[in-house]
Amino acid sequence: MLFHVRMDVRIPHDLDPQVRAEIVATEKAYSQELQRSGKWPHIWRIVGEYSNISIFDVASNDELHQILSGLPLFAYMDIRVTPLATHPSDVKAVTR
Amino acid sequence: MLFHVRMDVRIPHDLDPQVRAEIVATEKAYSQELQRSGKWPHIWRIVGEYSNISIFDVASNDELHQILSGLPLFAYMDIRVTPLATHPSDVKAVTR
Amino acid sequence: MLFHVRMDVRIPHDLDPQVRAEIVATEKAYSQELQRSGKWPHIWRIVGEYSNISIFDVASNDELHQILSGLPLFAYMDIRVTPLATHPSDVKAVTR
Amino acid sequence: MLFHVRMDVRIPHDLDPQVRAEIVATEKAYSQELQRSGKWPHIWRIVGEYSNISIFDVASNDELHQILSGLPLFAYMDIRVTPLATHPSDVKAVTR
Amino acid sequence: MLFHVRMDVRIPHDLDPQVRAEIVATEKAYSQELQRSGKWPHIWRIVGEYSNISIFDVASNDELHQILSGLPLFAYMDIRVTPLATHPSDVKAVTR
Amino acid sequence: MLFHVRMDVRIPHDLDPQVRAEIVATEKAYSQELQRSGKWPHIWRIVGEYSNISIFDVASNDELHQILSGLPLFAYMDIRVTPLATHPSDVKAVTR
Amino acid sequence: MLFHVRMDVRIPHDLDPQVRAEIVATEKAYSQELQRSGKWPHIWRIVGEYSNISIFDVASNDELHQILSGLPLFAYMDIRVTPLATHPSDVKAVTR
Amino acid sequence: MLFHVRMDVRIPHDLDPQVRAEIVATEKAYSQELQRSGKWPHIWRIVGEYSNISIFDVASNDELHQILSGLPLFAYMDIRVTPLATHPSDVKAVTR
Amino acid sequence: MLFHVRMDVRIPHDLDPQVRAEIVATEKAYSQELQRSGKWPHIWRIVGEYSNISIFDVASNDELHQILSGLPLFAYMDIRVTPLATHPSDVKAVTR
Amino acid sequence: MLFHVRMDVRIPHDLDPQVRAEIVATEKAYSQELQRSGKWPHIWRIVGEYSNISIFDVASNDELHQILSGLPLFAYMDIRVTPLATHPSDVKAVTR
Repeated sequence: MLFHVRMDVRIPHDLDPQVRAEIVATEKAYSQELQRSGKWPHIWRIVGEYSNISIFDVASNDELHQILSGLPLFAYMDIRVTPLATHPSDVKAVTR
Repeated sequence: MLFHVRMDVRIPHDLDPQVRAEIVATEKAYSQELQRSGKWPHIWRIVGEYSNISIFDVASNDELHQILSGLPLFAYMDIRVTPLATHPSDVKAVTR
Repeated sequence: MLFHVRMDVRIPHDLDPQVRAEIVATEKAYSQELQRSGKWPHIWRIVGEYSNISIFDVASNDELHQILSGLPLFAYMDIRVTPLATHPSDVKAVTR
Repeated sequence: MLFHVRMDVRIPHDLDPQVRAEIVATEKAYSQELQRSGKWPHIWRIVGEYSNISIFDVASNDELHQILSGLPLFAYMDIRVTPLATHPSDVKAVTR
Repeated sequence: MLFHVRMDVRIPHDLDPQVRAEIVATEKAYSQELQRSGKWPHIWRIVGEYSNISIFDVASNDELHQILSGLPLFAYMDIRVTPLATHPSDVKAVTR
Repeated sequence: MLFHVRMDVRIPHDLDPQVRAEIVATEKAYSQELQRSGKWPHIWRIVGEYSNISIFDVASNDELHQILSGLPLFAYMDIRVTPLATHPSDVKAVTR
Repeated sequence: MLFHVRMDVRIPHDLDPQVRAEIVATEKAYSQELQRSGKWPHIWRIVGEYSNISIFDVASNDELHQILSGLPLFAYMDIRVTPLATHPSDVKAVTR
Repeated sequence: MLFHVRMDVRIPHDLDPQVRAEIVATEKAYSQELQRSGKWPHIWRIVGEYSNISIFDVASNDELHQILSGLPLFAYMDIRVTPLATHPSDVKAVTR
Repeated sequence: MLFHVRMDVRIPHDLDPQVRAEIVATEKAYSQELQRSGKWPHIWRIVGEYSNISIFDVASNDELHQILSGLPLFAYMDIRVTPLATHPSDVKAVTR
Repeated sequence: MLFHVRMDVRIPHDLDPQVRAEIVATEKAYSQELQRSGKWPHIWRIVGEYSNISIFDVASNDELHQILSGLPLFAYMDIRVTPLATHPSDVKAVTR
């Protein structure tokens, strides 16, 4: 089940630089593990912004919230989730 | 080069039903041809809305505008384009 | 899996009154059948508006879109869907 | 009498972690007591956000404000209240 | 129980002038009867707009929705309802 | 001459608690004196928010600004003023 | 007493051209009479828009609403009124 | 003197197709004459929208309004004007 | 050449009170000198807000930016500039 | 390939003035090098704001993001990117 997620990162300017570096490194590892598991199939950077647009593939709303609220940067991001359905013109869906 | 595109369809209620059906059918064929060519790799329906979120993979801004303005439903849609870049945490990009 | 759905009805003023009455009656029957099936557990009117806030309990995003896009008033409504997860303070969830 | 309430939590990043933990724990106890009393029949987490959507069942506007302004997190939340009425298609209302 | 209600009138330009005149006249009578009953204690015009700000004093959300949805102009207005509570600095409340 | 005023209080979290308590107490006295003088005939709390909706009855725009900018909480509030006129359906105005 | 007023003209495209021309001509005469009387001391066009920003000098809110609601184009405009007060740095006010 | 202008075209769906074609053709000629005169140095299409972003170089606000309100499509466009100044980092300005 | 300028002052609460007083005093002198020169013909306070609406009369966009960016409070204000043109109904313009 | 970029600078008031001066100086050098290379053909100041509107001419979305995220002020700016295409009325394009 697919969800469209936009994340806008808002790290406070006065956050300790070392703390910041650690959180960002942990975030990357956390994200890449989920990407490899297949639950986070796409992540793109929005040009010019400290933001990403991602696609998640999860079994339930609860699983998605558990993943997102577990992000090391969760406290420093604005996140908006949009549920997706199969589009009737999708050729990949049509040929299933 | 990837672009995120959101399309919200607003067909006027008083459009002739046969005209409408023809435009929608032409739109589907047009979309599926572009999907098969690789230029429109993803299309998803937004749950509860007559809208889609799509990813386009094109060579230039001009090519994208030519594709979008050629959509049979173009006159009846609100379209917003967001340019995408490679995300530094993207495992598919990392392993390239 | 629960979803919060807000529907704002915008029927054009020049819609034929008989057509309108038929759509509204069909909408009511369609809604009540889904309520009785357990898939639409709550529906409330927003005071002062021709709008409702509803809770849906469905197996997937696709099922929810099928239900919503099948609403007889679908073409005349603005719909916004918000996915819900279990709240950690929910006493009903805690005692499960 | 039912009210729809959305609460978005905005705890400042520099709040003392122990103070924060105490407020959050007190908030949970306060919420669960109201849930058990029947005045707060529903609370759901919005997926991906530090926010909830709740339904309150109270005798008056004054009682609702007393409850909400008494929330331990009140000073750290944006709250929006929407009054609800019985929907004419509600099967539970119809069978009353 | 008090509610703040803002009503913005949007009568379509092509409404039959006689129909319009009748609706507006019926609206006035309906409003004045409710004012005299004490349920609609205040109504003010917003300067420069075809809008009013009103205060309603009703027993319940359902009663308020019944009143508002019964307004002859209901189909031609945008209505927003804000529930009100006693203010702790209100001298009239203090002296009760 | 009547004006509708909405005030949203935004006291910074790090304001000294004693300073805050003094400002809030002074604000209450200032408000109640104006209420008793007839210049501030109505003040209501918005349910769930640290906000009020008030009606002022003053002789001029300058007098209203003098009153509002003199509020002890003025530096910590967002204020929006809407000028009001007599509504043609107002029974109290009609009988004058 | 001064008020800042912004008017955005939205004449429907299908209005009869002769009716339109008459309304616009009447509007001009109405406006110029008020300008000459001193009640409408300033009117400026917003560059690129069918809109104006005006300053009115009237004795009361009721007088302003009477003037604005009497504009021949009133039914075809969005109007927003902002009450103005003397600015403490205004040299013209200082020298009074 | 430079101005940034965004124009969003909103031609009504029921405009006579021949009238529409004539207006669009006249608009093109009008625009190109101004471009050749140096008063309209840049015009770009916004990808995916029936909109343009333009730069105008004119002697005054009045001249710009005369040009924009003379556009054959003026009645069918939303236009927003932003005045521009020389940027202190502009190398072309620096070398003047 | 006239411009409409709205300035909203947002001085941080923790600014040193003496620094603040000096900036505000310098701002007043700066503003009054420009008013006396004829470049800043109007300044009004918005009732209830720490904001002003002003009219500037300058020779160019660059001159206006130089004036505005030179305001002692510039770093603490949100400023929006709207270019103005002569209105065709302006009696003062007509009689020129 | 052209992109329209708007940058709004939001430097925190409590940033060390020397750090600030260094960042601003580095930003200027960085910008001017890109302007001289042809990748940043236009930069204009928005009158009255600490903002610029720029045009970039780059080979890809990734190149644009690399340039923008490399701006010394990147952490202190809100940036919005709009992809541009050739306009069919552009005389410079027509004559190619």
